[in-house]
Amino acid sequence: MAKVVTGLRPGGRSERIQTAVHQAVKELQKNLEQSQITIPMIADEAGVTPSTIYRRWGDINQLFSDVALNELKPDMEPKDLGSFQLDITTWVEQYFEEYSSEVGQTLLRDLLYATESSNARKCETLIVQQLDIIQARAKARSELTIENQEIIEAVIAPMLFRILFTDRTLSLDYVHILLERLFKAHPDFN
Amino acid sequence: MAKVVTGLRPGGRSERIQTAVHQAVKELQKNLEQSQITIPMIADEAGVTPSTIYRRWGDINQLFSDVALNELKPDMEPKDLGSFQLDITTWVEQYFEEYSSEVGQTLLRDLLYATESSNARKCETLIVQQLDIIQARAKARSELTIENQEIIEAVIAPMLFRILFTDRTLSLDYVHILLERLFKAHPDFN
Repeated sequence: MAKVVTGLRPGGRSERIQTAVHQAVKELQKNLEQSQITIPMIADEAGVTPSTIYRRWGDINQLFSDVALNELKPDMEPKDLGSFQLDITTWVEQYFEEYSSEVGQTLLRDLLYATESSNARKCETLIVQQLDIIQARAKARSELTIENQEIIEAVIAPMLFRILFTDRTLSLDYVHILLERLFKAHPDFN
Repeated sequence: MAKVVTGLRPGGRSERIQTAVHQAVKELQKNLEQSQITIPMIADEAGVTPSTIYRRWGDINQLFSDVALNELKPDMEPKDLGSFQLDITTWVEQYFEEYSSEVGQTLLRDLLYATESSNARKCETLIVQQLDIIQARAKARSELTIENQEIIEAVIAPMLFRILFTDRTLSLDYVHILLERLFKAHPDFN
């Protein structure tokens, strides 16, 4: 599956450091509040010098954001359930469950809170990569589809708005309302 | 205009401290990177003890988030331009220009990055308060309107998604496409 390119030579020194440092952050996050974690603590846990971390990530928020982006990268392809509508529905449900969970919400916030906003800006790319797999399968089945952009605007964006910016209960019911509306707007799916 | 209730007695000691501390944060933010600012620096600038700040805000991210929420609160009513469609269009354009600016994006991220997520969850309330003013005016003019929830889902959510989660150029053209689609879905407005 296509991954966001890290620009690192696989297995090289740079990648090994990144893996060790990410692992150290995740280890510390298990037992501490984010605000209690410091770069020297991470360096100690990862077996590198603090200056290695400062040089590479600049500050701790950038590092937290990088770790969050890595965690949010899908580690498998969307399920193939035999139809475009089912594939989209199932993938959206899974996406919602991941992002609306407490862990998912923390990852989203870590992702956003970096000096450079480039990590959060990769979210759309990650979504489109997954949707493209569903689109390609549907085309192979000669099915009609709905464009990615429309799926993002009609379903993903309102879902993320609800997760981040409202105090409403997060339930799959809302996702189903959005999906139903999306498919209703395309008579081929009714 | 309705404001998000702070729960503070106007002019009381608690409110005076809040004002001084918020002011100190904004002063320091003018010249320093966020990650360089510390609670002792803020306390010094505000003329309070660091423990006053710790007791009240818990940690620095909560304080940054509170300051951001205050900055993002609209300080005036939406313009009255004589029709629902014009009022909504102008208000949305203004909202987009505020949130897509560099300052607006930083405020959004500060808002989101708090231990408690309750500040970000007030965004919808702030939007609904402004839209309700526009709705009430339209009703007084006996105009047909579009429900707040639909405006949020069709325009605000995709706009915020584009600002936060994509690397696309932010321009008013996109906002106009979203608005046009919203009004087209309601034949009364064509």
